[in-house]
Amino acid sequence: MFSVTIRDHIMIAHSLSGEVFGPAQRLHGATYVVDATFRRAGLDADGIVVDIGRASEVLRAVLSELGYRNLDDEAEFADMNTTTEELARVIAERLADRARAGALGEGARELDGLLVTLHESHVAWASYERPL
Amino acid sequence: MFSVTIRDHIMIAHSLSGEVFGPAQRLHGATYVVDATFRRAGLDADGIVVDIGRASEVLRAVLSELGYRNLDDEAEFADMNTTTEELARVIAERLADRARAGALGEGARELDGLLVTLHESHVAWASYERPL
Amino acid sequence: MFSVTIRDHIMIAHSLSGEVFGPAQRLHGATYVVDATFRRAGLDADGIVVDIGRASEVLRAVLSELGYRNLDDEAEFADMNTTTEELARVIAERLADRARAGALGEGARELDGLLVTLHESHVAWASYERPL
Amino acid sequence: MFSVTIRDHIMIAHSLSGEVFGPAQRLHGATYVVDATFRRAGLDADGIVVDIGRASEVLRAVLSELGYRNLDDEAEFADMNTTTEELARVIAERLADRARAGALGEGARELDGLLVTLHESHVAWASYERPL
Amino acid sequence: MFSVTIRDHIMIAHSLSGEVFGPAQRLHGATYVVDATFRRAGLDADGIVVDIGRASEVLRAVLSELGYRNLDDEAEFADMNTTTEELARVIAERLADRARAGALGEGARELDGLLVTLHESHVAWASYERPL
Amino acid sequence: MFSVTIRDHIMIAHSLSGEVFGPAQRLHGATYVVDATFRRAGLDADGIVVDIGRASEVLRAVLSELGYRNLDDEAEFADMNTTTEELARVIAERLADRARAGALGEGARELDGLLVTLHESHVAWASYERPL
Repeated sequence: MFSVTIRDHIMIAHSLSGEVFGPAQRLHGATYVVDATFRRAGLDADGIVVDIGRASEVLRAVLSELGYRNLDDEAEFADMNTTTEELARVIAERLADRARAGALGEGARELDGLLVTLHESHVAWASYERPL
Repeated sequence: MFSVTIRDHIMIAHSLSGEVFGPAQRLHGATYVVDATFRRAGLDADGIVVDIGRASEVLRAVLSELGYRNLDDEAEFADMNTTTEELARVIAERLADRARAGALGEGARELDGLLVTLHESHVAWASYERPL
Repeated sequence: MFSVTIRDHIMIAHSLSGEVFGPAQRLHGATYVVDATFRRAGLDADGIVVDIGRASEVLRAVLSELGYRNLDDEAEFADMNTTTEELARVIAERLADRARAGALGEGARELDGLLVTLHESHVAWASYERPL
Repeated sequence: MFSVTIRDHIMIAHSLSGEVFGPAQRLHGATYVVDATFRRAGLDADGIVVDIGRASEVLRAVLSELGYRNLDDEAEFADMNTTTEELARVIAERLADRARAGALGEGARELDGLLVTLHESHVAWASYERPL
Repeated sequence: MFSVTIRDHIMIAHSLSGEVFGPAQRLHGATYVVDATFRRAGLDADGIVVDIGRASEVLRAVLSELGYRNLDDEAEFADMNTTTEELARVIAERLADRARAGALGEGARELDGLLVTLHESHVAWASYERPL
Repeated sequence: MFSVTIRDHIMIAHSLSGEVFGPAQRLHGATYVVDATFRRAGLDADGIVVDIGRASEVLRAVLSELGYRNLDDEAEFADMNTTTEELARVIAERLADRARAGALGEGARELDGLLVTLHESHVAWASYERPL
């Protein structure tokens, strides 16, 4: 099994609902350093998992829908906590949607899985992994 | 599959028995930067894998039983080499015990797996992974 | 010249005023990984620059006044942009105040300088440095 | 499941064939920071996955066949693109060959898998994983 | 004194002349992770050292003149070894030229110094520092 | 001003005397990731600060006198605490001695300064800096 990972980041504001979050119930924010991993059993004719240039553009596009925003004000997140885990899932789902729509090229239709990791600090990170 | 990882560290002294260890047969020591990863198929009602605050406290408690000690003097390690691999296993077992005892909260009873990685330097690390 | 550095972090929300900031004029947030460096020409009788335990507590105390907050709502920042550069200065000033007040111990009165670096992502960071 | 990872690096020149590579079709180069992970269900009598000293020497030997070279001039790569993904596979195959030949010791014959990751920059890396 | 640092990277091929370089006398290559630090005694009216967006564009422009090339073929380097140290100097000089030409904005004319660090691997890096 | 830095590491056991050290008064240990920085106003005829190969060997030689040992048993440290700060100084002094003795080559006699940083964990490090 092969994989390729690219790194980018977003900076957002949000608050989290629930006593378990303690002071993070207040409006605060985070830089998420985002690692998107694309998995594939074999390589394409060029010898790659996915075109890194296109993958980087697609990841940037997905992140730009979220970045420099207060997620508490985004209608799409009205019914959920925007925890690091949930945001990893949201980003993975959006990358999967775009891959299926062809944004990563024809070869990317043969991707076997996606892993998205969000680093919220030097001591904590969360991941979501799914087949494609 | 979701996961959350938290990082902490310990500093210990020990020696390793066996010719394979060369100069590490002498009493020496290590800083282990410890990454504890908690895995779970779904998220709880708050949108998390595990309460990071509680998980950090539990990890700190497990590590404080080991840190600032000469492991050669600890009765529990009398019959084993305290290699990085073995210590990763010991820490994972102790985290699993505490999770089962409820220290991570009720939701944590639904954890599917644990992965513990100990970084012994910038060029070497070891992991132990187990289901829960 | 000797120095000791300790690392901690904060997560905050804020917005920045001025066209130069582009989308960062919107309410967003950041994780700042904070490195506080204490400088001293010589060591004390124990062979240290500063008690790392005390320094960590003082840094944590200074950061806890800022963390998990929307800095736009804090009166003390009403007249300034809370840029990474300015926050590095604010944290350094507060560490200096506490050092002068004795929170780092008597020996810390001999500190020669302070350097505070805030990492806002894996590709950008800012520092403020001053003598003591 | 246990694993041990060791890190080393190589510096090579190469070019990549195919429009997808854009400017990387020109002769350029890369530092690959190489992480070799050895996996094993149980530990040996010494409490280790593999002798880190021997594993480091074997990895260094494999890398020295590639390093400080223009891979475009190497006959073995005449029919392939030396992408990060392909080089991860080549290094893993060569490590597997040497493990099977006994270079990692008798115990290493019980290794269950290999994972090789090549970091080509701070924002991109690729991996190849295989059973043994 | 304040500073802001931004990180980017380039991938180049080259060879080095002189017995001291051993196998690096052969054509090989490197990824340089480049940190450009801008220093300034005070902040501008917006509370910044330099506009990070503009500085990132300028750094990218300077690096794009070097990246994905065989530096042995570049006329400008015909009379010198393109060591990590020399490339750090070249990049710093070009950033200084662009700063003086106004590419970083009017405020950047008050910059006091520049530091450029090139990381050639996880175990070696070089820097060049100069006043402005 | 130019500089070149190389990274290596040591693993040692020791204890620290003095109430300020709390649990670190017990015998424990540390991995120190050691960064040795060589500074020089100009480059030599080859375009380098120092031969990285020789500098790496010299650093390794200095570290091998300390590594895989219990520093409490070393006569040379009988009268001092082997704090991270003191060890940074010891390593810098020994590098300076070897540079003066010609171990880094003739060109290295023009070095202007040395900086040694010891990382004791992901959240704490200490440095010692001196002219040459």
